[in-house]
Amino acid sequence: MSLELEQQSIFEQFEQLISKEDKLEIREFLDDQNISDVAELINEYPEYESQIIANMAIHRAASVFKILDISQQKDIVKELPPAKTAELLNELPADDRTDFLEELPKAAIRDLIKLLDPDERKITLAMLGYPEDSVGRLMTPDYVYVFLHNTVSEVFETIRKHARGSETIDVIYIIDENGLLIDDIRIRDVILASPEKRVDEIIDGRFVSLNVEDDQEHASQVFKMNNRVALPVVDDNNILLGIVTIDDMLWVANEEFSEDMQKMGGTEALNEPYLDIPLLKLFRKRIGWLVVLFLGEMLTATAMGYFEDEIAKAVVLALFVPLIISSGGNSGSQASTLIIQAMAVGEITIADWWRVLRRELMSGLLLGTVLGTIGFIRVAVWHSIAPHLYGPHWMMIASTVGFSLIGVVLWGTLSGSMLPIFLKKLGADPAVSSAPFVATLVDVTGLIIYFSFAYLFLSGILL
Amino acid sequence: MSLELEQQSIFEQFEQLISKEDKLEIREFLDDQNISDVAELINEYPEYESQIIANMAIHRAASVFKILDISQQKDIVKELPPAKTAELLNELPADDRTDFLEELPKAAIRDLIKLLDPDERKITLAMLGYPEDSVGRLMTPDYVYVFLHNTVSEVFETIRKHARGSETIDVIYIIDENGLLIDDIRIRDVILASPEKRVDEIIDGRFVSLNVEDDQEHASQVFKMNNRVALPVVDDNNILLGIVTIDDMLWVANEEFSEDMQKMGGTEALNEPYLDIPLLKLFRKRIGWLVVLFLGEMLTATAMGYFEDEIAKAVVLALFVPLIISSGGNSGSQASTLIIQAMAVGEITIADWWRVLRRELMSGLLLGTVLGTIGFIRVAVWHSIAPHLYGPHWMMIASTVGFSLIGVVLWGTLSGSMLPIFLKKLGADPAVSSAPFVATLVDVTGLIIYFSFAYLFLSGILL
Repeated sequence: MSLELEQQSIFEQFEQLISKEDKLEIREFLDDQNISDVAELINEYPEYESQIIANMAIHRAASVFKILDISQQKDIVKELPPAKTAELLNELPADDRTDFLEELPKAAIRDLIKLLDPDERKITLAMLGYPEDSVGRLMTPDYVYVFLHNTVSEVFETIRKHARGSETIDVIYIIDENGLLIDDIRIRDVILASPEKRVDEIIDGRFVSLNVEDDQEHASQVFKMNNRVALPVVDDNNILLGIVTIDDMLWVANEEFSEDMQKMGGTEALNEPYLDIPLLKLFRKRIGWLVVLFLGEMLTATAMGYFEDEIAKAVVLALFVPLIISSGGNSGSQASTLIIQAMAVGEITIADWWRVLRRELMSGLLLGTVLGTIGFIRVAVWHSIAPHLYGPHWMMIASTVGFSLIGVVLWGTLSGSMLPIFLKKLGADPAVSSAPFVATLVDVTGLIIYFSFAYLFLSGILL
Repeated sequence: MSLELEQQSIFEQFEQLISKEDKLEIREFLDDQNISDVAELINEYPEYESQIIANMAIHRAASVFKILDISQQKDIVKELPPAKTAELLNELPADDRTDFLEELPKAAIRDLIKLLDPDERKITLAMLGYPEDSVGRLMTPDYVYVFLHNTVSEVFETIRKHARGSETIDVIYIIDENGLLIDDIRIRDVILASPEKRVDEIIDGRFVSLNVEDDQEHASQVFKMNNRVALPVVDDNNILLGIVTIDDMLWVANEEFSEDMQKMGGTEALNEPYLDIPLLKLFRKRIGWLVVLFLGEMLTATAMGYFEDEIAKAVVLALFVPLIISSGGNSGSQASTLIIQAMAVGEITIADWWRVLRRELMSGLLLGTVLGTIGFIRVAVWHSIAPHLYGPHWMMIASTVGFSLIGVVLWGTLSGSMLPIFLKKLGADPAVSSAPFVATLVDVTGLIIYFSFAYLFLSGILL
């Protein structure tokens, strides 16, 4: 069934129901839809968002709430009556609740935590105590656990008793009396085993766990490498604290890459959707790097100042300045992006720097030679069309441009590729060596390379 | 248990076993390890990769094989005896097998497909028939299906019969006699229902399906919005063809973002790990855009040519050229990255162009004013230190620089933000409007803006 077609008719149905104002019918209609379709409805009719949430069965309302944008979530909580908010927050899976709360101002968190049941409050406060971007923030305490001495039929009983409240029953956890994690078994293995077997007969002793302080990005890697829909989270003493489910990893991946991309574009990570972030905050996130780059780029004016006399003698030199420096910037951006990306997905580590350097040395020479040749030809062709343009020394000018391009592109490629590795080595985020950052770095040095070749080819002729 | 600690001892154990050359013991050791740890072993000891695979139980060998890099997979298949390769390929889940095959040259695919069982061969050929990046390439035909008239205990029987061969039993699919998909139920709902209930009594009629031709990126969105670990894949007639599991989505997200990043850095998507791609191929992926950008950037030399007389009269103008154009480039890169990223995660659609334009108009003015002010102050301060540098007309030069910066940054911000939306509107990939692309576009226009302000402030004085 086509998702788009279905949704169109949902919108129409919803509008009809809203115009009739029959609460019961709206409620029935909403409980009939897929979670994702209700989320679509809220995107389409933001004016009804809190009404839609309020008119759903509470566990379904929670499922919708948790996939909405933070700005929508904030609006809804603002409009809902406190009793309904309490119900909704208590129903939210602990990880999504923590996720929502950590986006709010401190005072608002305090008010909302008061609305929680004592049990849920304890869980939430504990989770808020783990570092941001740690696995602790993602875990849910709602899982099914059994003991080694349980039989398969007892496991089924436990599942029947606790499955309603647990986020997944696809994996069952085995702990000892002290809460120490011993193993996990998949539900398939439980189903396949005969009912009288004991748990210790069907476990395989192979499990992978996450530490509660682990980075979320690390968790995402572990999920990718292990065929599990959920992973147990333990503390340093191997005590089972909760589980993380694979669906959260899709959001983690999204967030990590968004942050990387924004940094690579020369902005601080926004952490909010572009259209929702207040304009002044957006400005603050952008101006920092722009000013830093601008101050760096001011060195070009200083560098150009040193060559002012040369430019006065041979104005023709000034004409190629933008072409030269931007070629260095472009090749540098290319190289740094390739390396940052390869490091982000784990293809390159710091230890590979030498292999990267050799590759980029060759790449830079090849790329520079191509651009240098085009640059040389450009001057030669223009000269043949309009001989007065570069005068009798066009050949020397063409050589200056050509060799400068080789030098600048090689330099851009090398510094663009080494900078992210160097930053990582220093413990900084490689994504900071954004395209604009590398371009700025290469601009200043590019000028020096260019005017050095100019001296070499043109001194005694034009200079 | 700490993953790192565990692995260190695994490496040591492996080295001891290898030195003893006891095949049986090696086999036992390998079958005792986690899949991800065996993959780590292969990364650490590439010289033993095919031996490790050959010495594992075949279903575990397949689990390891499917998470290796394509280059490792190729090496292993090259070294394995054909009989073992056949066994391995037949054991691989259909989606991972297709994924592996599509990376190989046509002749190699033909040879390997010959090794498959007739059944597996049919499945693989069918999957290779779906477009690259379509859901069809990801799906697996190994799922559990039941009929409406089945009872819960019959469902369990079916699961016991087919669970070994199916990729997941967390979701069970309900079809009619023609293979039409009717609904899906989660295993938890089956476990919670009493054994004599019929399937049609426990389904809720709410399911979300993917079309076999859907884009993989779309599938990833659907997974994020629906709390499912697997989704059914149907054809246009709603016939169930297979299922896609959520763990594949982690790889899809990774790949999509890698491609987007590479394009934004001004390279074609590599589709291979950076360190594995042959140098000449890497060169070809990079040179294309560099030449295009270079040809575009040549216009700066032409533009500068028009202003040659002005530069000759006022060499001081040339000094600020790199500063001005790079500021436009940097603000343009920032804006385009923000918009591409927001579009990639679905925060901005084409319909939002007007809202984006208004935000960027304000942002551009604010950012430009800050940089313009710094630029003005820079000239003023340098003048107060060295009055001969800019001469008596320093105020006019400072104004030229300051106002040009406002104009160039505003222009960079506007074109950087509108270009990705415009490309998307044309049906192109917004990520193509990379930082280097926007920078080049802004460079040429930046020169025109700069020299226009120079005319305004300096004509009759220096010009």
